[in-house]
Amino acid sequence: MSLISVKALTFDVFGTVVDWRTGVMRELSAFERERRRDDAGIGGVPCERLADDWRRAYYAGIADMREGRRPWATIETVLKDAIASLAPQHGLPALSQDEIARLTGAWSRLEAWDGSAEALCALKADRIIAALSNGNVGLIIRLSRHAGLPWDMVFGPDVLAAYKPSPKAYLTAAELLSLRPDECMMVATHARDLRAARAAGFRTAYVYRRDELGPGVAKEEPDPGTDLVVEDLHQLARALKLTS
Amino acid sequence: MSLISVKALTFDVFGTVVDWRTGVMRELSAFERERRRDDAGIGGVPCERLADDWRRAYYAGIADMREGRRPWATIETVLKDAIASLAPQHGLPALSQDEIARLTGAWSRLEAWDGSAEALCALKADRIIAALSNGNVGLIIRLSRHAGLPWDMVFGPDVLAAYKPSPKAYLTAAELLSLRPDECMMVATHARDLRAARAAGFRTAYVYRRDELGPGVAKEEPDPGTDLVVEDLHQLARALKLTS
Repeated sequence: MSLISVKALTFDVFGTVVDWRTGVMRELSAFERERRRDDAGIGGVPCERLADDWRRAYYAGIADMREGRRPWATIETVLKDAIASLAPQHGLPALSQDEIARLTGAWSRLEAWDGSAEALCALKADRIIAALSNGNVGLIIRLSRHAGLPWDMVFGPDVLAAYKPSPKAYLTAAELLSLRPDECMMVATHARDLRAARAAGFRTAYVYRRDELGPGVAKEEPDPGTDLVVEDLHQLARALKLTS
Repeated sequence: MSLISVKALTFDVFGTVVDWRTGVMRELSAFERERRRDDAGIGGVPCERLADDWRRAYYAGIADMREGRRPWATIETVLKDAIASLAPQHGLPALSQDEIARLTGAWSRLEAWDGSAEALCALKADRIIAALSNGNVGLIIRLSRHAGLPWDMVFGPDVLAAYKPSPKAYLTAAELLSLRPDECMMVATHARDLRAARAAGFRTAYVYRRDELGPGVAKEEPDPGTDLVVEDLHQLARALKLTS
């Protein structure tokens, strides 16, 4: 079956469409500089490590929910709990509720990787484009408005009743689009996400985002069975144009 | 509380944003003309009455599901079942499955009322805009792509697990937007929809669509407590602009 039968593209968002690390580090650094002015005793908090630990806590929170070690919650709640406990470990003082909310808001103020919004517009001309993120719908809507992402639809765990990489997340998204799984293509920069999508019957496209985890930090390579492997979303649009 | 606190607008779609009657009649008439050429025995099917009966069956199907007389189904299924039984009553021969699917597809090929797509773009600059329809998500996505409706989000019964006017439909939409009900405004041309939204805590805006049910056919007037009563979505955008 050729890719001409792909009627919808579902996108991972954090890392694949937006650069979470630069945006989160920027807001953590701004916050840290502000606090430093207030209190000469704080200084030089390594925001890079804090951002990476925060992202790791995001993944750990999802694993905990999927395996029943933690009750169901939105990613915003997971992120808030995580920053509250990580901040003191990284040399920041205990955060107020307002500070926790403000810092967590950074995840809705991220920027798209260069040219991604324009490429999504091009892709949207021929096919349905939907966010399929582990971020809750409210968070992804606000982020998409900020970054100019023109989704036809936003799917999140609160709509799908499942976190990726549960098969249910992909299968429910396809069902809500009134499509068969093999008419959907999952687009992500994470091999694990694509492996699960493929097992659920989706076509898959891997996008290299070589700096997602920081300069020179290795990422898992795409599986051999991946339908398309591209450098960015423009290349994805060109590859799919040839098939439509 | 002023309307400045309204952070999201949720829209009824059929009748409020798109003109279902003209579009459905057009496709029914085209189909009837085609059939007439095939078979000299058929002619002059009154498509106006058939369109109106089809819309009535849409409402009846929802009432049947809400009151447990019919198992849960999508509106596309309700529409298919309805046209299959209505067609012979209106002088058309029994329809094939393909013909049923083609005619039902008319509901995803409707046009927006004049200027509505542009007004939605203007409204989107300041506030989240979401479809909140009894149409299933797949149908509303296809219709919105056809009519150029730039939603931030599409809500349907298959995402909300409830049909309007159940309170659950409105309350779940607000929750998925991470908003309180009074931060949401329901926009509709149907007083009943707005009455239920208001009871759930939403702000409300009534849009006159004087020809929705046909020239000169009366509609229920808006309730006195409606926050805004407007002629079209441009007027809604102007009224809200003054509050933001």
